[in-house]
Amino acid sequence: MEGVDYLGDERSKAEFDVDAMKIVWAGSKDAFDLVHRMSKLVADDPVFRKDNRTMLDRKALFKSTLEKSAYAFKRVNELNLTYEEATKLRFFIDEPTFTDLHWGMFVPAIKGQGTEEQQEKWLPLAQKMQIIGCYAQTELGHGSNIQGLETTATFDSKTDEFVIHSPTLTSSKWWPGGLGKVSTHAVVYARLITEGQDHGVHGFIVQLRSLEDHIPLPGITVGDIGTKFGNGGYNTMDNGVLRFNHVRIPRNQMLMRILQVSREGKCTYSDVPRQLIYGTMVYVRQTIVSDASIALSRAVTIATRYSCVRRQFGSQNGGPETQVIDYKTQQNRLFPLLASAYAFRFVAEWLKWLYGDVTARLNANDFSMLQEAHACTAGLKSLTTTATADAIEECRKLCGGHGYLCSSGLPELFAMYVPACTYEGDNMVLLLQVARFLVKTVSQLGSGKQPVGTTSYMGRGEYLMQYHSNVERAEDWLKFGAILEAFEARAFKMVVSCAQSLLNFPNPEEGFAELSVDLAEVAIAHCQLIVVSKFIDKLKQEIAGKGVKQQLVYLCNIYALSLLHKHQGEFLATSTITAEQASLATTQLRNLYSQVRPNAVALVDSFNYTDHYLGSVLGRYDGNVYPKLYEAAWKDPLNDSVVTDGYVEYIKPLLKGKLNLSRL
Amino acid sequence: MEGVDYLGDERSKAEFDVDAMKIVWAGSKDAFDLVHRMSKLVADDPVFRKDNRTMLDRKALFKSTLEKSAYAFKRVNELNLTYEEATKLRFFIDEPTFTDLHWGMFVPAIKGQGTEEQQEKWLPLAQKMQIIGCYAQTELGHGSNIQGLETTATFDSKTDEFVIHSPTLTSSKWWPGGLGKVSTHAVVYARLITEGQDHGVHGFIVQLRSLEDHIPLPGITVGDIGTKFGNGGYNTMDNGVLRFNHVRIPRNQMLMRILQVSREGKCTYSDVPRQLIYGTMVYVRQTIVSDASIALSRAVTIATRYSCVRRQFGSQNGGPETQVIDYKTQQNRLFPLLASAYAFRFVAEWLKWLYGDVTARLNANDFSMLQEAHACTAGLKSLTTTATADAIEECRKLCGGHGYLCSSGLPELFAMYVPACTYEGDNMVLLLQVARFLVKTVSQLGSGKQPVGTTSYMGRGEYLMQYHSNVERAEDWLKFGAILEAFEARAFKMVVSCAQSLLNFPNPEEGFAELSVDLAEVAIAHCQLIVVSKFIDKLKQEIAGKGVKQQLVYLCNIYALSLLHKHQGEFLATSTITAEQASLATTQLRNLYSQVRPNAVALVDSFNYTDHYLGSVLGRYDGNVYPKLYEAAWKDPLNDSVVTDGYVEYIKPLLKGKLNLSRL
Repeated sequence: MEGVDYLGDERSKAEFDVDAMKIVWAGSKDAFDLVHRMSKLVADDPVFRKDNRTMLDRKALFKSTLEKSAYAFKRVNELNLTYEEATKLRFFIDEPTFTDLHWGMFVPAIKGQGTEEQQEKWLPLAQKMQIIGCYAQTELGHGSNIQGLETTATFDSKTDEFVIHSPTLTSSKWWPGGLGKVSTHAVVYARLITEGQDHGVHGFIVQLRSLEDHIPLPGITVGDIGTKFGNGGYNTMDNGVLRFNHVRIPRNQMLMRILQVSREGKCTYSDVPRQLIYGTMVYVRQTIVSDASIALSRAVTIATRYSCVRRQFGSQNGGPETQVIDYKTQQNRLFPLLASAYAFRFVAEWLKWLYGDVTARLNANDFSMLQEAHACTAGLKSLTTTATADAIEECRKLCGGHGYLCSSGLPELFAMYVPACTYEGDNMVLLLQVARFLVKTVSQLGSGKQPVGTTSYMGRGEYLMQYHSNVERAEDWLKFGAILEAFEARAFKMVVSCAQSLLNFPNPEEGFAELSVDLAEVAIAHCQLIVVSKFIDKLKQEIAGKGVKQQLVYLCNIYALSLLHKHQGEFLATSTITAEQASLATTQLRNLYSQVRPNAVALVDSFNYTDHYLGSVLGRYDGNVYPKLYEAAWKDPLNDSVVTDGYVEYIKPLLKGKLNLSRL
Repeated sequence: MEGVDYLGDERSKAEFDVDAMKIVWAGSKDAFDLVHRMSKLVADDPVFRKDNRTMLDRKALFKSTLEKSAYAFKRVNELNLTYEEATKLRFFIDEPTFTDLHWGMFVPAIKGQGTEEQQEKWLPLAQKMQIIGCYAQTELGHGSNIQGLETTATFDSKTDEFVIHSPTLTSSKWWPGGLGKVSTHAVVYARLITEGQDHGVHGFIVQLRSLEDHIPLPGITVGDIGTKFGNGGYNTMDNGVLRFNHVRIPRNQMLMRILQVSREGKCTYSDVPRQLIYGTMVYVRQTIVSDASIALSRAVTIATRYSCVRRQFGSQNGGPETQVIDYKTQQNRLFPLLASAYAFRFVAEWLKWLYGDVTARLNANDFSMLQEAHACTAGLKSLTTTATADAIEECRKLCGGHGYLCSSGLPELFAMYVPACTYEGDNMVLLLQVARFLVKTVSQLGSGKQPVGTTSYMGRGEYLMQYHSNVERAEDWLKFGAILEAFEARAFKMVVSCAQSLLNFPNPEEGFAELSVDLAEVAIAHCQLIVVSKFIDKLKQEIAGKGVKQQLVYLCNIYALSLLHKHQGEFLATSTITAEQASLATTQLRNLYSQVRPNAVALVDSFNYTDHYLGSVLGRYDGNVYPKLYEAAWKDPLNDSVVTDGYVEYIKPLLKGKLNLSRL
């Protein structure tokens, strides 16, 4: 049956140019080529196989990841890959490992926070991987609140050294990836103490293990923090625990680009603008939004293809049952997720542009857009990662019972994805930051300060406060203007209402605490508006390929109208729309599903994922699901023998009524 | 630090009698004693330890479960436990295993569907576990739609046997627990074919393995279907695959209580009412709702206790940071889940009563309440399991990063719980069954047929159609009457609206398909009403213990008002409440959180879970979280050696720049 395309019928129904959509998804022809080449390179190499990953115990799993990481570095050198190619190659290996932190956090930390001399010394070593580094910030008792970290770095002017120390159990570094079993070095965040004064948290390069035999250096206790959610998943990573017992490092291992400590222990700030750190945060969160669109599209690919293969109920006269994707309830759960994948893709594309813009402005000492850019990326990080985590689990449920098998790929994808909701800013904490910025923006409207970027709609505040949608027929909800204004009015009215409530509190901080739940809802409304508006902006551009733009228009409408339905309480409560208009929106939403239905498989094919990357029997490109599920089952270790290990000790005595004689 | 109670301060704040609440939660003093004794018996026995479960590979994990299962049976006999005690004992071992299916499905199937002779023959064998049975219904290509099963049982009148056969790959039995590696027998569901006619799906007792050496009998292919979601979790269960190649069984192994096949192959229905099957379904789903309240309360216990231990931000003048539970955003996510746990507990208690009522009526040949009881239990199964699965994941997120560690207990609880959304009726399929019943009930209102049981509010249809809430102040939302009528009006108006839309379709089935999304929403609205109303009914009873009822009143209000907020779009769109009233409800909801806050730990203590059963370092009774997390980390297999396995092969060559010389 190899070579048969069980989804061929579905593919022949597509009403658009799939190859053109692949380019749109990738962002450009060059980006497509890069991704295509690197994903194929990984898929074709047996060293990178991952279909046995969920069956290995922790030690075997970890060792196999070490092999892949080393082999990947070797291949990068052999093939002389560029930085961009190497990054993509590692991405498609699809296995969290110490090199993620080495390249993604350790090297950038030195680049961003190290002086030129420090960069000259440490970067070549890191780039050749003669040292392996990680990023040791969070502690057992301290996560999001960096200012609460307890590890100390006390300057000893006698020896010109810092003494790094973990004064309490809760100050143990906890979670850093690559720390537990691999890294030789770490950028350690600790409270700088000099001349008896606490100067807040700064980064220090600390060697952890001998470069000769890998044994932890004196004063250093280091290990893995234990098993994490899911089989396979993040268990390939050695998230670590680290304690310091008065470990000494030379003064020049404090990262001193911003703050310098002199030989005498005096602190001096350099003239490097401290806002630079926001540029880095915009960058990191931009990649997280992009990764969200990838994780979500991956789950949607699996659920969409299997919903076409799977049949249930509705058999007429003994004929085949109905394809599950033809049920409205399935479409209503699946198609908004498909639309979200595209929506997140385009907002990520825009964020990439934003990062470039922010960087250019920073270099020109223009900080005017920084706060807005920071709030916007924080909010989008929160919105897209929460939505994606929920969506992966929803896709698993959409696959019925078989989604629960590891061979479906969805359990591991979920377990591997959910940390994104917590790292680089807890999603709830981020929403409150956004809300704070929105309330501030609104409160300054009267003072003549113009709102910028994604808040510029607030400049039309008077209009929006009076806004009532004029939609009369279901088709009116297809107009982007109608959608956009409804989302703007809902968000603006909610911000204003919160800002007014805050005035009732004598102490603003107490108000923020009391109203934080409403504030988080406000932030979500604003961020949804951003995603909708960037999707619409994308559609204003020229988009090549037969039928491609039309499909994206459908998806944009589905994205917006499904949100409108989900949050109709807010649209109604703010008098932005009437109950009748809400009902028309729902009708239009469900009409749109029929447009997407024949294109569903082609729309997920456009993501261009290899079967290796998908890692799912249910999501196979050829749709040959059941024979392959059956085949996969027999590979489970429990099937190594026909009679199970344990039969003699525990089952036989039970059946024979001889439990009392057994060793139990 | 052993023996210290880090949550003592929290406990001293409680404003109610915790011991009395424990009785309320358990249902009665006797129920409390039973649960208390059995959970302690398990917790105190080292054979039942489970803290290493997430670190074992599949084979080791499975073998350890076999040991626990055999040992449990031995203990049951040694201690001469009653059926009820034994069931609770197995429950608290908290490890899915073949005996769940043996006692929970195989034995009941024979009792319910077997003739008296069949029961006499098979039940004693099963009760002594001289045979071990499972329940083989679902197939690789067929889940919820039982009528689509493909396995055949063809009567051969020459030999007086049935020939059991798997005609296709998709007809392979797939998923039955206990089937893969343990069961010697199965109740197999297959299409009965006799005299060339297909008589639909019936149950057959089939022996699978030799009772001498456990080797599968000729014609039988059986194995495990592979790894499932999560570490530990359901991987202790041998969900199996089974194929038949013309396997012969004697005619008397068809379960013939309802339909009999004669020596000549003639079919005759007995006079046993076929509705009996609904009684069983009510029973099974009632236990699922009860289990939902337990799983949910377990997750809430962990999240609540850890939210009191964990501190973040808000430090004043170098003092301790704020307890996470004091943040409104945390309360807003956590307290409605705490309230849901109690709500589900009381609706489960009522369902237990309902099952008794249904059984008594069935025995009296009164089928008048059957449809309503069936719809109600189907809907509550769907509602409570979906909510619980989501809630466990939410509780994990409420624990921040540490919730992602297996030692938090939450990943495994989630992975182990989610199948409940799929088994015993897919949750979406069930909602549509409920909706169908509701539409039918509404359409019969004019004909004088009185709605019964949980639909009796529909008898006040005219009143409800005209209903507009008269709430004027936030406090008005504390009145149960105001809440109940709002929920009734919303549900009724939604059913009526759907029923009217259905009339626009010439073909009702097409209408059901087109409107299924709305219908599912209608079913949810109705089921939420049931839960709210049963909680209120509970509060009309006398409840002993200082302050106990007051706490339950708060929780009932929180449960209802949090749903009202979440679904405010529906309450507004049906003109049941105004935007102003919705806002008052939200205000009142958030006021209630302050009432619950000082009682939060005591409210979860009332569930009376042992630390063994909780299986969570974060949820420990004594709150001694951080030292124990630290301790747990070192038990990971990766920490067996200071220098990791794989260093020599993969890390050293990397650091030394000698990858090209290595075996890679």
